[in-house]
Amino acid sequence: MPIIESIPNISEGRRAEVVERIVAAVGATPGVRVLDLSSDGSHNRSVITLVGDQASMKAAILALYDAAVPAIDLRAHSGEHPRVGAVDVVPFVPIEDVTMSDCVALARDVAAEVAARFDIPVFLYEEASDNPARKNLEDIRRGEFEGLADKLASDGWKPDFGPAAPHPTAGASVIGARMPLIAYNINLATDRLDVAKKIATAVRHSSGGLRYVKAMGVPLVDRGVVQVSMNLTNYEKTPIHRVFEFVKREAARYGVSVLESEIVGLVPGAALTASAAWFLQVDSFTDDLVLETKLRKA
Amino acid sequence: MPIIESIPNISEGRRAEVVERIVAAVGATPGVRVLDLSSDGSHNRSVITLVGDQASMKAAILALYDAAVPAIDLRAHSGEHPRVGAVDVVPFVPIEDVTMSDCVALARDVAAEVAARFDIPVFLYEEASDNPARKNLEDIRRGEFEGLADKLASDGWKPDFGPAAPHPTAGASVIGARMPLIAYNINLATDRLDVAKKIATAVRHSSGGLRYVKAMGVPLVDRGVVQVSMNLTNYEKTPIHRVFEFVKREAARYGVSVLESEIVGLVPGAALTASAAWFLQVDSFTDDLVLETKLRKA
Repeated sequence: MPIIESIPNISEGRRAEVVERIVAAVGATPGVRVLDLSSDGSHNRSVITLVGDQASMKAAILALYDAAVPAIDLRAHSGEHPRVGAVDVVPFVPIEDVTMSDCVALARDVAAEVAARFDIPVFLYEEASDNPARKNLEDIRRGEFEGLADKLASDGWKPDFGPAAPHPTAGASVIGARMPLIAYNINLATDRLDVAKKIATAVRHSSGGLRYVKAMGVPLVDRGVVQVSMNLTNYEKTPIHRVFEFVKREAARYGVSVLESEIVGLVPGAALTASAAWFLQVDSFTDDLVLETKLRKA
Repeated sequence: MPIIESIPNISEGRRAEVVERIVAAVGATPGVRVLDLSSDGSHNRSVITLVGDQASMKAAILALYDAAVPAIDLRAHSGEHPRVGAVDVVPFVPIEDVTMSDCVALARDVAAEVAARFDIPVFLYEEASDNPARKNLEDIRRGEFEGLADKLASDGWKPDFGPAAPHPTAGASVIGARMPLIAYNINLATDRLDVAKKIATAVRHSSGGLRYVKAMGVPLVDRGVVQVSMNLTNYEKTPIHRVFEFVKREAARYGVSVLESEIVGLVPGAALTASAAWFLQVDSFTDDLVLETKLRKA
Protein backbone atom coordinates (compact mmCIF):
# COMPACT_ATOMS: atom_id res chain seq x y z
CA MET A 1 0.00 0.00 0.00
CA PRO A 2 1.70 3.24 -1.13
CA ILE A 3 1.92 6.07 1.38
CA ILE A 4 2.17 9.65 0.18
CA GLU A 5 2.32 12.58 2.55
CA SER A 6 0.91 15.98 1.70
CA ILE A 7 1.40 19.14 3.74
CA PRO A 8 -0.98 21.76 2.31
CA ASN A 9 -0.47 25.31 3.59
CA ILE A 10 -3.60 27.44 3.69
CA SER A 11 -3.79 31.20 4.26
CA GLU A 12 -5.94 31.10 7.37
CA GLY A 13 -4.54 30.83 10.88
CA ARG A 14 -6.89 32.97 12.93
CA ARG A 15 -10.49 31.84 12.40
CA ALA A 16 -10.40 28.44 14.11
CA GLU A 17 -13.87 27.44 12.88
CA VAL A 18 -12.85 27.98 9.24
CA VAL A 19 -9.68 25.92 9.70
CA GLU A 20 -11.63 23.17 11.46
CA ARG A 21 -14.16 22.99 8.63
CA ILE A 22 -11.39 22.66 6.04
CA VAL A 23 -9.54 20.00 8.04
CA ALA A 24 -12.81 18.10 8.58
CA ALA A 25 -13.40 18.04 4.81
CA VAL A 26 -9.91 16.63 4.26
CA GLY A 27 -10.21 14.10 7.09
CA ALA A 28 -13.58 12.83 5.85
CA THR A 29 -12.00 11.62 2.61
CA PRO A 30 -11.89 7.79 2.60
CA GLY A 31 -8.35 6.41 2.95
CA VAL A 32 -6.88 9.64 4.31
CA ARG A 33 -5.46 10.17 7.78
CA VAL A 34 -4.77 13.66 9.12
CA LEU A 35 -1.58 13.43 11.20
CA ASP A 36 -1.13 17.01 12.26
CA LEU A 37 -2.56 20.53 12.18
CA SER A 38 -0.56 23.58 13.10
CA SER A 39 -2.13 27.07 12.95
CA ASP A 40 -0.18 30.28 13.45
CA GLY A 41 -2.05 33.51 14.16
CA SER A 42 0.76 35.93 13.38
CA HIS A 43 1.49 34.10 10.13
CA ASN A 44 -2.30 33.81 9.58
CA ARG A 45 -1.58 30.41 8.10
CA SER A 46 -2.28 26.74 8.84
CA VAL A 47 -0.28 23.68 7.91
CA ILE A 48 -2.09 20.35 7.63
CA THR A 49 -0.26 17.01 7.44
CA LEU A 50 -2.10 14.10 5.85
CA VAL A 51 -1.24 10.70 4.40
CA GLY A 52 -2.87 8.29 1.99
CA ASP A 53 -2.40 6.69 -1.40
CA GLN A 54 -2.61 8.51 -4.75
CA ALA A 55 -6.36 8.32 -5.29
CA SER A 56 -7.34 9.26 -1.75
CA MET A 57 -4.75 12.05 -1.65
CA LYS A 58 -6.14 13.58 -4.84
CA ALA A 59 -9.69 13.41 -3.48
CA ALA A 60 -8.59 14.96 -0.17
CA ILE A 61 -6.78 17.89 -1.80
CA LEU A 62 -9.78 18.61 -4.04
CA ALA A 63 -12.01 18.50 -0.95
CA LEU A 64 -9.61 20.97 0.67
CA TYR A 65 -10.00 23.41 -2.25
CA ASP A 66 -13.78 22.93 -2.15
CA ALA A 67 -13.81 24.05 1.47
CA ALA A 68 -11.01 26.65 1.42
CA VAL A 69 -11.63 28.63 -1.78
CA PRO A 70 -15.06 30.04 -0.77
CA ALA A 71 -13.89 30.63 2.84
CA ILE A 72 -10.63 32.55 2.34
CA ASP A 73 -10.48 35.95 0.63
CA LEU A 74 -6.89 37.07 0.08
CA ARG A 75 -8.00 40.66 -0.62
CA ALA A 76 -8.67 40.93 3.12
CA HIS A 77 -5.78 38.75 4.27
CA SER A 78 -2.75 39.89 6.23
CA GLY A 79 -0.04 37.91 7.97
CA GLU A 80 3.72 37.71 8.38
CA HIS A 81 4.24 34.74 6.09
CA PRO A 82 4.49 35.31 2.31
CA ARG A 83 1.62 33.78 0.28
CA VAL A 84 0.16 33.86 -3.23
CA GLY A 85 -3.01 31.87 -2.68
CA ALA A 86 -5.85 30.87 -0.36
CA VAL A 87 -4.48 27.35 -0.78
CA ASP A 88 -0.90 28.55 -0.98
CA VAL A 89 1.29 25.46 -1.37
CA VAL A 90 0.56 21.75 -1.77
CA PRO A 91 3.60 19.44 -1.75
CA PHE A 92 3.38 15.69 -2.25
CA VAL A 93 6.09 13.62 -0.55
CA PRO A 94 6.94 9.94 -1.16
CA ILE A 95 6.98 7.99 2.12
CA GLU A 96 6.57 4.26 1.50
CA ASP A 97 6.23 1.97 -1.54
CA VAL A 98 6.01 4.97 -3.85
CA THR A 99 8.55 6.83 -5.97
CA MET A 100 9.25 10.50 -6.53
CA SER A 101 7.98 10.01 -10.12
CA ASP A 102 4.65 8.84 -8.73
CA CYS A 103 4.43 12.01 -6.65
CA VAL A 104 5.34 14.18 -9.64
CA ALA A 105 2.59 12.52 -11.66
CA LEU A 106 0.13 13.07 -8.82
CA ALA A 107 1.12 16.73 -8.50
CA ARG A 108 0.52 17.33 -12.22
CA ASP A 109 -2.79 15.49 -12.13
CA VAL A 110 -4.03 17.45 -9.10
CA ALA A 111 -2.73 20.75 -10.53
CA ALA A 112 -4.62 20.23 -13.80
CA GLU A 113 -7.82 19.37 -11.95
CA VAL A 114 -7.56 22.33 -9.54
CA ALA A 115 -7.00 24.74 -12.45
CA ALA A 116 -9.93 23.33 -14.43
CA ARG A 117 -12.37 23.05 -11.57
CA PHE A 118 -11.64 26.30 -9.68
CA ASP A 119 -10.20 28.50 -12.44
CA ILE A 120 -7.07 29.11 -10.40
CA PRO A 121 -3.60 29.52 -11.99
CA VAL A 122 -1.28 26.79 -10.73
CA PHE A 123 2.52 26.74 -10.71
CA LEU A 124 4.36 23.43 -10.43
CA TYR A 125 7.43 23.51 -8.17
CA GLU A 126 10.42 21.50 -6.95
CA GLU A 127 10.59 18.01 -8.52
CA ALA A 128 7.30 18.54 -10.38
CA SER A 129 8.68 21.49 -12.36
CA ASP A 130 10.86 21.07 -15.44
CA ASN A 131 11.72 24.78 -15.39
CA PRO A 132 14.90 25.52 -13.38
CA ALA A 133 13.68 29.06 -12.68
CA ARG A 134 10.47 27.75 -11.16
CA LYS A 135 11.66 24.97 -8.87
CA ASN A 136 12.19 27.19 -5.87
CA LEU A 137 9.09 28.11 -3.85
CA GLU A 138 10.52 31.48 -2.73
CA ASP A 139 11.03 32.53 -6.37
CA ILE A 140 7.46 31.64 -7.31
CA ARG A 141 6.02 33.37 -4.27
CA ARG A 142 8.04 36.59 -4.64
CA GLY A 143 5.63 39.54 -5.09
CA GLU A 144 2.92 37.62 -3.24
CA PHE A 145 -0.83 37.84 -3.91
CA GLU A 146 -0.63 41.61 -4.33
CA GLY A 147 1.89 41.35 -7.20
CA LEU A 148 0.34 38.32 -8.83
CA ALA A 149 -1.55 39.98 -11.72
CA ASP A 150 1.65 41.69 -12.93
CA LYS A 151 3.74 38.56 -12.41
CA LEU A 152 1.36 36.29 -14.34
CA ALA A 153 1.39 38.77 -17.24
CA SER A 154 5.19 39.01 -17.30
CA ASP A 155 7.66 37.02 -19.37
CA GLY A 156 8.39 33.51 -18.05
CA TRP A 157 5.53 33.43 -15.54
CA LYS A 158 2.69 31.88 -17.51
CA PRO A 159 1.28 29.32 -15.05
CA ASP A 160 1.64 25.57 -15.73
CA PHE A 161 -2.13 25.16 -15.57
CA GLY A 162 -5.10 27.53 -15.54
CA PRO A 163 -5.57 31.17 -16.54
CA ALA A 164 -2.76 33.74 -16.74
CA ALA A 165 -4.67 35.95 -14.29
CA PRO A 166 -5.20 35.56 -10.53
CA HIS A 167 -8.38 34.10 -9.10
CA PRO A 168 -10.02 37.24 -7.59
CA THR A 169 -10.09 35.91 -4.00
CA ALA A 170 -7.97 32.74 -4.04
CA GLY A 171 -4.97 34.06 -6.03
CA ALA A 172 -2.82 31.23 -7.31
CA SER A 173 -1.52 27.90 -6.02
CA VAL A 174 1.87 26.20 -6.02
CA ILE A 175 1.65 22.42 -6.29
CA GLY A 176 4.57 20.03 -6.50
CA ALA A 177 6.56 17.10 -5.23
CA ARG A 178 9.54 17.05 -2.94
CA MET A 179 11.54 14.88 -0.56
CA PRO A 180 10.55 14.81 3.11
CA LEU A 181 11.84 17.94 4.80
CA ILE A 182 13.51 17.67 8.19
CA ALA A 183 13.33 20.66 10.51
CA TYR A 184 16.56 20.29 12.47
CA ASN A 185 17.96 22.79 14.95
CA ILE A 186 21.28 22.78 16.79
CA ASN A 187 21.52 24.75 20.02
CA LEU A 188 24.93 26.12 20.93
CA ALA A 189 26.25 26.52 24.48
CA THR A 190 26.67 30.28 24.06
CA ASP A 191 24.59 33.44 23.85
CA ARG A 192 26.71 34.81 20.98
CA LEU A 193 24.25 35.35 18.14
CA ASP A 194 27.08 36.30 15.77
CA VAL A 195 28.48 32.77 16.10
CA ALA A 196 25.11 31.16 15.22
CA LYS A 197 24.78 33.50 12.24
CA LYS A 198 28.30 32.79 10.99
CA ILE A 199 27.69 29.05 11.23
CA ALA A 200 24.34 29.36 9.44
CA THR A 201 26.08 31.26 6.65
CA ALA A 202 28.75 28.56 6.42
CA VAL A 203 26.40 25.58 6.37
CA ARG A 204 23.59 26.77 4.12
CA HIS A 205 23.52 26.19 0.38
CA SER A 206 22.61 29.72 -0.61
CA SER A 207 25.85 31.17 0.76
CA GLY A 208 28.26 28.38 -0.19
CA GLY A 209 27.46 25.51 2.19
CA LEU A 210 25.82 22.13 1.83
CA ARG A 211 23.49 21.56 -1.13
CA TYR A 212 20.26 20.67 0.73
CA VAL A 213 20.49 22.92 3.80
CA LYS A 214 18.62 26.12 4.57
CA ALA A 215 19.80 27.80 7.78
CA MET A 216 19.58 30.88 9.93
CA GLY A 217 21.02 31.88 13.29
CA VAL A 218 18.44 32.84 15.92
CA PRO A 219 18.55 33.67 19.64
CA LEU A 220 16.60 31.54 22.14
CA VAL A 221 16.10 34.52 24.40
CA ASP A 222 14.47 32.85 27.39
CA ARG A 223 17.17 30.16 27.52
CA GLY A 224 20.08 32.53 26.98
CA VAL A 225 21.56 30.46 24.12
CA VAL A 226 21.57 30.66 20.33
CA GLN A 227 20.41 28.23 17.68
CA VAL A 228 21.32 27.29 14.14
CA SER A 229 17.81 26.69 12.81
CA MET A 230 17.77 24.55 9.68
CA ASN A 231 15.65 22.84 7.07
CA LEU A 232 17.22 19.76 5.51
CA THR A 233 15.51 19.37 2.15
CA ASN A 234 17.05 16.10 0.99
CA TYR A 235 18.29 13.88 3.81
CA GLU A 236 19.53 11.20 1.40
CA LYS A 237 21.95 13.54 -0.33
CA THR A 238 22.77 15.82 2.61
CA PRO A 239 22.33 13.55 5.65
CA ILE A 240 21.74 14.75 9.21
CA HIS A 241 25.04 13.44 10.60
CA ARG A 242 27.05 15.41 8.03
CA VAL A 243 25.19 18.59 8.95
CA PHE A 244 25.70 17.92 12.67
CA GLU A 245 29.45 17.32 12.33
CA PHE A 246 29.79 20.38 10.07
CA VAL A 247 28.09 22.67 12.58
CA LYS A 248 30.00 21.15 15.49
CA ARG A 249 33.32 21.79 13.75
CA GLU A 250 32.42 25.37 12.83
CA ALA A 251 31.31 26.01 16.42
CA ALA A 252 34.62 24.67 17.75
CA ARG A 253 36.38 27.30 15.64
CA TYR A 254 34.80 29.90 17.95
CA GLY A 255 35.41 27.88 21.11
CA VAL A 256 31.74 26.96 21.30
CA SER A 257 30.21 23.52 22.00
CA VAL A 258 27.00 21.95 20.78
CA LEU A 259 24.53 21.99 23.67
CA GLU A 260 21.94 19.73 22.04
CA SER A 261 19.96 19.41 18.85
CA GLU A 262 16.26 19.08 18.18
CA ILE A 263 14.01 17.61 15.52
CA VAL A 264 10.81 19.60 15.00
CA GLY A 265 7.88 17.58 13.72
CA LEU A 266 8.43 14.20 12.19
CA VAL A 267 11.55 12.60 10.73
CA PRO A 268 11.67 9.62 8.36
CA GLY A 269 13.10 6.59 10.16
CA ALA A 270 15.55 6.02 7.31
CA ALA A 271 17.19 9.39 8.02
CA LEU A 272 17.99 8.31 11.58
CA THR A 273 19.02 4.74 10.83
CA ALA A 274 21.42 6.05 8.17
CA SER A 275 22.93 8.41 10.73
CA ALA A 276 23.25 5.65 13.34
CA ALA A 277 25.00 3.45 10.78
CA TRP A 278 27.40 6.28 9.90
CA PHE A 279 28.36 7.09 13.48
CA LEU A 280 28.66 3.38 14.35
CA GLN A 281 30.70 2.81 11.17
CA VAL A 282 28.39 -0.04 10.16
CA ASP A 283 29.71 -1.52 6.95
CA SER A 284 27.27 -1.97 4.02
CA PHE A 285 24.22 -0.97 6.03
CA THR A 286 20.82 -1.16 4.36
CA ASP A 287 17.37 -0.63 5.81
CA ASP A 288 16.68 -4.31 5.19
CA LEU A 289 18.68 -4.91 8.37
CA VAL A 290 15.96 -3.12 10.30
CA LEU A 291 13.54 -5.63 11.76
CA GLU A 292 10.44 -3.51 11.19
CA THR A 293 11.36 -2.85 7.53
CA LYS A 294 11.83 -6.57 6.98
CA LEU A 295 8.47 -7.23 8.66
CA ARG A 296 6.65 -4.80 6.35
CA LYS A 297 8.16 -6.47 3.32
CA ALA A 298 7.69 -10.09 4.44
CA MET B 1 -2.02 -6.17 16.07
CA PRO B 2 0.68 -7.48 18.43
CA ILE B 3 3.87 -8.83 16.87
CA ILE B 4 5.94 -11.40 18.75
CA GLU B 5 9.11 -12.89 17.32
CA SER B 6 10.26 -16.40 18.09
CA ILE B 7 13.62 -17.87 17.15
CA PRO B 8 13.42 -21.63 17.83
CA ASN B 9 16.74 -23.50 17.63
CA ILE B 10 16.43 -27.12 16.55
CA SER B 11 19.18 -29.77 16.69
CA GLU B 12 19.25 -30.57 12.99
CA GLY B 13 21.43 -28.73 10.50
CA ARG B 14 22.48 -31.46 8.08
CA ARG B 15 19.39 -33.24 6.71
CA ALA B 16 17.88 -30.47 4.59
CA GLU B 17 14.64 -32.40 3.93
CA VAL B 18 13.99 -32.77 7.67
CA VAL B 19 14.58 -29.07 8.29
CA GLU B 20 12.36 -28.14 5.35
CA ARG B 21 9.52 -30.31 6.65
CA ILE B 22 9.74 -28.68 10.09
CA VAL B 23 9.86 -25.16 8.65
CA ALA B 24 6.93 -25.96 6.35
CA ALA B 25 4.86 -27.08 9.36
CA VAL B 26 5.64 -23.80 11.11
CA GLY B 27 5.00 -21.67 8.03
CA ALA B 28 1.64 -23.36 7.35
CA THR B 29 0.27 -22.04 10.65
CA PRO B 30 -2.29 -19.28 9.96
CA GLY B 31 -1.07 -15.81 10.99
CA VAL B 32 2.61 -16.80 11.09
CA ARG B 33 5.34 -15.50 8.80
CA VAL B 34 8.72 -17.23 8.62
CA LEU B 35 11.32 -14.46 8.19
CA ASP B 36 14.52 -16.46 8.16
CA LEU B 37 16.07 -19.91 8.28
CA SER B 38 19.71 -20.48 8.97
CA SER B 39 21.16 -24.04 9.06
CA ASP B 40 24.70 -24.85 10.12
CA GLY B 41 26.16 -28.25 9.28
CA SER B 42 29.09 -28.15 11.70
CA HIS B 43 26.80 -27.02 14.51
CA ASN B 44 24.19 -29.52 13.22
CA ARG B 45 21.61 -26.95 14.17
CA SER B 46 19.02 -24.71 12.51
CA VAL B 47 17.64 -21.38 13.64
CA ILE B 48 14.19 -20.35 12.42
CA THR B 49 12.86 -16.79 12.76
CA LEU B 50 9.09 -16.33 12.76
CA VAL B 51 6.61 -13.63 13.76
CA GLY B 52 2.94 -13.55 14.64
CA ASP B 53 0.58 -12.79 17.51
CA GLN B 54 0.23 -14.85 20.68
CA ALA B 55 -2.30 -17.41 19.44
CA SER B 56 -0.63 -18.05 16.09
CA MET B 57 2.80 -18.20 17.71
CA LYS B 58 1.62 -20.85 20.17
CA ALA B 59 0.11 -22.91 17.36
CA ALA B 60 3.27 -22.58 15.27
CA ILE B 61 5.60 -23.72 18.06
CA LEU B 62 3.38 -26.72 18.82
CA ALA B 63 3.42 -27.57 15.10
CA LEU B 64 7.20 -27.33 15.24
CA TYR B 65 7.35 -29.87 18.09
CA ASP B 66 4.90 -32.13 16.21
CA ALA B 67 7.28 -32.20 13.27
CA ALA B 68 10.64 -32.12 15.07
CA VAL B 69 10.20 -34.56 17.96
CA PRO B 70 9.67 -37.71 15.80
CA ALA B 71 12.37 -36.62 13.32
CA ILE B 72 15.32 -35.79 15.58
CA ASP B 73 17.00 -38.38 17.80
CA LEU B 74 19.56 -36.83 20.10
CA ARG B 75 21.09 -40.22 20.90
CA ALA B 76 22.55 -40.14 17.39
CA HIS B 77 23.22 -36.39 17.26
CA SER B 78 26.63 -34.73 17.12
CA GLY B 79 27.57 -31.13 16.45
CA GLU B 80 29.77 -28.35 17.73
CA HIS B 81 27.02 -26.37 19.39
CA PRO B 82 25.87 -27.33 22.91
CA ARG B 83 22.27 -28.63 23.10
CA VAL B 84 19.91 -30.38 25.52
CA GLY B 85 16.97 -31.06 23.22
CA ALA B 86 15.70 -31.85 19.74
CA VAL B 87 13.89 -28.54 20.05
CA ASP B 88 16.66 -26.96 22.04
CA VAL B 89 15.63 -23.36 22.79
CA VAL B 90 12.48 -21.36 22.09
CA PRO B 91 12.64 -17.65 22.97
CA PHE B 92 9.70 -15.27 22.59
CA VAL B 93 10.60 -11.64 21.92
CA PRO B 94 8.28 -8.60 22.12
CA ILE B 95 8.42 -6.57 18.88
CA GLU B 96 5.36 -4.37 18.52
CA ASP B 97 2.24 -3.58 20.57
CA VAL B 98 3.12 -6.29 23.06
CA THR B 99 4.89 -6.26 26.42
CA MET B 100 7.57 -8.46 27.94
CA SER B 101 4.91 -9.68 30.41
CA ASP B 102 2.82 -10.88 27.48
CA CYS B 103 5.80 -12.85 26.18
CA VAL B 104 6.49 -14.33 29.63
CA ALA B 105 2.85 -15.46 29.83
CA LEU B 106 3.08 -16.96 26.35
CA ALA B 107 6.33 -18.79 27.23
CA ARG B 108 4.74 -20.34 30.32
CA ASP B 109 1.62 -21.31 28.40
CA VAL B 110 3.60 -22.95 25.58
CA ALA B 111 5.98 -24.64 28.06
CA ALA B 112 3.08 -26.23 29.97
CA GLU B 113 1.48 -27.44 26.75
CA VAL B 114 4.74 -28.86 25.34
CA ALA B 115 5.43 -30.75 28.58
CA ALA B 116 1.90 -32.16 28.73
CA ARG B 117 1.58 -33.07 25.08
CA PHE B 118 5.07 -34.48 24.40
CA ASP B 119 6.19 -35.59 27.88
CA ILE B 120 9.30 -33.42 27.60
CA PRO B 121 10.87 -31.67 30.62
CA VAL B 122 10.88 -27.89 30.04
CA PHE B 123 13.02 -25.25 31.72
CA LEU B 124 11.93 -21.63 31.66
CA TYR B 125 14.75 -19.11 31.07
CA GLU B 126 15.63 -15.42 30.99
CA GLU B 127 12.62 -13.18 31.75
CA ALA B 128 10.27 -16.18 31.99
CA SER B 129 12.19 -17.68 34.91
CA ASP B 130 11.79 -16.51 38.52
CA ASN B 131 14.85 -18.50 39.56
CA PRO B 132 18.09 -16.43 39.37
CA ALA B 133 20.14 -19.62 38.90
CA ARG B 134 18.08 -20.58 35.87
CA LYS B 135 17.86 -17.38 33.89
CA ASN B 136 21.04 -17.98 31.92
CA LEU B 137 20.79 -20.36 28.96
CA GLU B 138 24.41 -21.50 29.26
CA ASP B 139 23.82 -22.63 32.88
CA ILE B 140 20.73 -24.61 31.91
CA ARG B 141 22.46 -26.22 28.95
CA ARG B 142 25.66 -27.14 30.79
CA GLY B 143 26.15 -30.97 30.68
CA GLU B 144 24.07 -31.09 27.48
CA PHE B 145 21.80 -33.97 26.43
CA GLU B 146 24.30 -36.54 27.62
CA GLY B 147 24.28 -35.19 31.20
CA LEU B 148 20.58 -34.46 31.32
CA ALA B 149 19.37 -37.49 33.33
CA ASP B 150 21.82 -36.74 36.14
CA LYS B 151 21.10 -33.02 36.03
CA LEU B 152 17.31 -33.44 36.21
CA ALA B 153 17.74 -35.73 39.23
CA SER B 154 20.05 -33.29 41.04
CA ASP B 155 19.15 -30.61 43.56
CA GLY B 156 17.76 -27.41 42.04
CA TRP B 157 17.18 -28.82 38.57
CA LYS B 158 13.61 -30.08 38.73
CA PRO B 159 12.14 -28.78 35.46
CA ASP B 160 9.49 -26.04 35.49
CA PHE B 161 7.10 -28.29 33.57
CA GLY B 162 7.05 -32.00 32.67
CA PRO B 163 8.84 -35.08 34.05
CA ALA B 164 12.13 -34.96 35.96
CA ALA B 165 13.64 -37.33 33.40
CA PRO B 166 14.74 -36.70 29.82
CA HIS B 167 12.56 -37.58 26.86
CA PRO B 168 14.45 -40.59 25.41
CA THR B 169 15.12 -39.02 22.01
CA ALA B 170 14.13 -35.35 22.37
CA GLY B 171 15.86 -34.58 25.69
CA ALA B 172 14.56 -31.39 27.25
CA SER B 173 13.62 -27.91 26.04
CA VAL B 174 14.38 -24.41 27.23
CA ILE B 175 11.54 -21.96 26.64
CA GLY B 176 11.47 -18.34 27.67
CA ALA B 177 11.16 -14.67 26.90
CA ARG B 178 13.86 -12.13 26.24
CA MET B 179 14.58 -8.78 24.65
CA PRO B 180 15.61 -8.71 20.99
CA LEU B 181 19.25 -9.70 20.73
CA ILE B 182 21.57 -7.71 18.50
CA ALA B 183 24.57 -9.51 16.98
CA TYR B 184 27.04 -6.65 16.69
CA ASN B 185 30.68 -6.96 15.64
CA ILE B 186 33.39 -4.32 15.55
CA ASN B 187 36.35 -4.91 13.23
CA LEU B 188 39.66 -3.38 14.26
CA ALA B 189 42.29 -2.06 11.87
CA THR B 190 44.90 -4.49 13.16
CA ASP B 191 45.80 -8.18 13.04
CA ARG B 192 46.62 -8.24 16.75
CA LEU B 193 44.31 -10.85 18.23
CA ASP B 194 45.50 -10.04 21.76
CA VAL B 195 44.02 -6.54 21.39
CA ALA B 196 40.61 -7.90 20.32
CA LYS B 197 40.66 -10.34 23.24
CA LYS B 198 41.64 -7.68 25.77
CA ILE B 199 38.84 -5.42 24.53
CA ALA B 200 36.31 -8.29 24.64
CA THR B 201 37.34 -8.96 28.24
CA ALA B 202 36.93 -5.29 29.11
CA VAL B 203 33.52 -4.81 27.50
CA ARG B 204 31.71 -8.01 28.42
CA HIS B 205 29.58 -8.36 31.52
CA SER B 206 31.02 -11.68 32.67
CA SER B 207 34.48 -10.20 33.23
CA GLY B 208 33.52 -6.78 34.59
CA GLY B 209 32.17 -4.84 31.60
CA LEU B 210 28.76 -3.68 30.50
CA ARG B 211 25.70 -5.43 31.91
CA TYR B 212 24.10 -6.67 28.64
CA VAL B 213 27.15 -7.48 26.53
CA LYS B 214 28.63 -10.86 25.64
CA ALA B 215 31.90 -10.61 23.72
CA MET B 216 34.85 -12.49 22.37
CA GLY B 217 37.88 -11.56 20.29
CA VAL B 218 38.27 -13.50 17.04
CA PRO B 219 40.58 -13.28 14.01
CA LEU B 220 39.13 -12.64 10.53
CA VAL B 221 41.92 -14.63 8.93
CA ASP B 222 41.17 -13.99 5.25
CA ARG B 223 40.95 -10.24 5.83
CA GLY B 224 43.99 -10.01 8.08
CA VAL B 225 42.14 -8.10 10.82
CA VAL B 226 40.56 -8.97 14.17
CA GLN B 227 37.03 -8.58 15.47
CA VAL B 228 35.31 -7.98 18.77
CA SER B 229 32.28 -10.22 18.23
CA MET B 230 29.37 -9.35 20.50
CA ASN B 231 25.81 -10.10 21.47
CA LEU B 232 23.90 -7.17 22.93
CA THR B 233 21.14 -8.73 25.00
CA ASN B 234 19.25 -5.59 26.04
CA TYR B 235 19.72 -2.64 23.73
CA GLU B 236 17.51 -0.38 25.84
CA LYS B 237 19.71 -0.71 28.91
CA THR B 238 23.07 -1.17 27.19
CA PRO B 239 22.66 0.71 23.89
CA ILE B 240 24.75 0.15 20.76
CA HIS B 241 26.37 3.60 20.79
CA ARG B 242 27.70 3.10 24.31
CA VAL B 243 29.23 -0.24 23.32
CA PHE B 244 30.75 1.31 20.18
CA GLU B 245 32.33 4.23 22.06
CA PHE B 246 33.58 1.88 24.78
CA VAL B 247 35.31 -0.41 22.28
CA LYS B 248 36.69 2.53 20.31
CA ARG B 249 38.24 4.03 23.47
CA GLU B 250 39.76 0.71 24.55
CA ALA B 251 41.18 0.19 21.05
CA ALA B 252 42.76 3.68 21.13
CA ARG B 253 44.60 2.62 24.28
CA TYR B 254 46.52 0.15 22.07
CA GLY B 255 46.93 2.60 19.20
CA VAL B 256 44.29 0.78 17.18
CA SER B 257 41.38 2.27 15.21
CA VAL B 258 37.91 0.94 14.51
CA LEU B 259 37.84 -0.21 10.89
CA GLU B 260 34.08 -0.72 10.68
CA SER B 261 31.27 -2.46 12.49
CA GLU B 262 28.62 -4.89 11.33
CA ILE B 263 25.13 -5.91 12.34
CA VAL B 264 24.42 -9.59 11.74
CA GLY B 265 20.79 -10.45 11.11
CA LEU B 266 18.09 -7.97 12.03
CA VAL B 267 18.14 -5.00 14.39
CA PRO B 268 15.10 -3.30 15.92
CA GLY B 269 14.65 0.17 14.40
CA ALA B 270 14.39 1.70 17.88
CA ALA B 271 17.95 0.58 18.67
CA LEU B 272 19.27 2.57 15.71
CA THR B 273 17.09 5.64 16.14
CA ALA B 274 18.16 5.85 19.81
CA SER B 275 21.80 5.71 18.71
CA ALA B 276 21.27 8.39 16.06
CA ALA B 277 19.61 10.62 18.65
CA TRP B 278 22.54 10.11 21.06
CA PHE B 279 25.26 10.91 18.54
CA LEU B 280 23.28 13.88 17.20
CA GLN B 281 22.61 15.05 20.78
CA VAL B 282 18.89 15.27 20.05
CA ASP B 283 17.18 16.59 23.14
CA SER B 284 14.16 14.66 24.48
CA PHE B 285 14.01 12.26 21.55
CA THR B 286 11.17 9.76 21.42
CA ASP B 287 10.21 7.31 18.70
CA ASP B 288 7.01 9.31 18.21
CA LEU B 289 9.21 11.73 16.23
CA VAL B 290 9.75 8.98 13.67
CA LEU B 291 7.30 9.38 10.82
CA GLU B 292 6.70 5.66 10.32
CA THR B 293 6.05 5.10 14.05
CA LYS B 294 3.53 7.94 14.03
CA LEU B 295 1.90 6.46 10.92
CA ARG B 296 1.45 3.03 12.57
CA LYS B 297 -0.20 4.64 15.56
CA ALA B 298 -2.41 7.12 13.67
